[in-house]
Amino acid sequence: MDIPAPVIILVDPQMGENIGAAARAMLNCGLSELRLVRPRDGWPNERAEAMSAGALSVMPPVRVFDTVENAVADCHWVYATTARPRDMAKPVMTAREAAQDIRTRAEHSHRTAILFGGERAGLTNDDVALAHTIITIPLNPEFSSLNLGQCVLLCGYEWYQAQPRPEALSHVPATHKEFNAFFKRLESELDAHGFFRSPEMKPTVSRNVRTMLSRANPSDQEINTFHGILSALTSRKG
Amino acid sequence: MDIPAPVIILVDPQMGENIGAAARAMLNCGLSELRLVRPRDGWPNERAEAMSAGALSVMPPVRVFDTVENAVADCHWVYATTARPRDMAKPVMTAREAAQDIRTRAEHSHRTAILFGGERAGLTNDDVALAHTIITIPLNPEFSSLNLGQCVLLCGYEWYQAQPRPEALSHVPATHKEFNAFFKRLESELDAHGFFRSPEMKPTVSRNVRTMLSRANPSDQEINTFHGILSALTSRKG
Repeated sequence: MDIPAPVIILVDPQMGENIGAAARAMLNCGLSELRLVRPRDGWPNERAEAMSAGALSVMPPVRVFDTVENAVADCHWVYATTARPRDMAKPVMTAREAAQDIRTRAEHSHRTAILFGGERAGLTNDDVALAHTIITIPLNPEFSSLNLGQCVLLCGYEWYQAQPRPEALSHVPATHKEFNAFFKRLESELDAHGFFRSPEMKPTVSRNVRTMLSRANPSDQEINTFHGILSALTSRKG
Repeated sequence: MDIPAPVIILVDPQMGENIGAAARAMLNCGLSELRLVRPRDGWPNERAEAMSAGALSVMPPVRVFDTVENAVADCHWVYATTARPRDMAKPVMTAREAAQDIRTRAEHSHRTAILFGGERAGLTNDDVALAHTIITIPLNPEFSSLNLGQCVLLCGYEWYQAQPRPEALSHVPATHKEFNAFFKRLESELDAHGFFRSPEMKPTVSRNVRTMLSRANPSDQEINTFHGILSALTSRKG
């Protein structure tokens, strides 16, 4: 985790389980700095530990604050997550847009934080007023309520995705030569077995079979398997 | 919810709470068709109801199946979510790429499904072999274990964010049922012709053949051609 990552701040969280789920989701996404403002049941919290699936014991110690202002004091840029629209003249970003923004700011060594409200009522307008940017997560408008852990997960997930990654291909396809050798053998076996009803249709049908098999995009080893299948099926056993 | 949405299939789910969380996450993302394969504690399940925050009572009735095969029988394209890499030559997509793919298929009226494994061990290799495409969610490799509800949430979230691309698909794939009927026939012919050298190797070899053929992604008509090829090759002519 070399990249400067956003600090996650839970404001007035109630259930330890949700704090633990948030911590687990954070670590899933490579985030590790968690701050709590006025956790209802105090801190540390056994239920949070249990629910974090080990995340809390790997992450740096959680810091507890008495006000949001103190919790964000060392941050350059603060995002507030809200489910309902607030009547404030602040930029509103989706979680995806915010993730890009956070990455860009990190490149300039800005320290960022994301605020999440408690289970009962979310962030107050005063909390939101402390933030520079509002994050909303586009979801089914008829059923948009997320629990705390899930909301942290989606923001963390977007942050984690907002980095370039090398792509893996599933396998190395056989060369055309190997593929073609198999196809020619199949074609002549089909011919010998009377598969092509008429000489006029043969080119079309043959082309269709080739198209279908080439879509499978077989590897060397798979071409060998195809050869084995063909040998087995055309043997006199069975 | 006018857009044909993917079916969500939980295989061997254990805790009702996780089924409920998955249902809630689904509805958050506008998904509403949930199927269960062998839920450990039966169905319906009170804990699932409670945890779904009302989602289960809004969604169409959950359908329960005894096998994955039956659960995907009416689907054209199946995705399997896996955390660990499987040694199968299937296309691997991120949740984001899969979401695009699902949207594109939906535009062509393909019915899609996403498989999620149970809490204990995830999907078996046989389950994964039934799918066309593997979905992996890029997460912190040192702490990537997600719970079931969160995994469903991330896939659903990506689906909700994705817009269909005006990309043309080459053809309509056969349903799983048609594909499977052909595959079973091929498998029994191969068996009769002594293709499987040893009973121990049969499951692996058989899975590899299935993987290879499902990559070809045959249409109805192409499945018929495959049937014709098999009949020709196993006839006494030639």
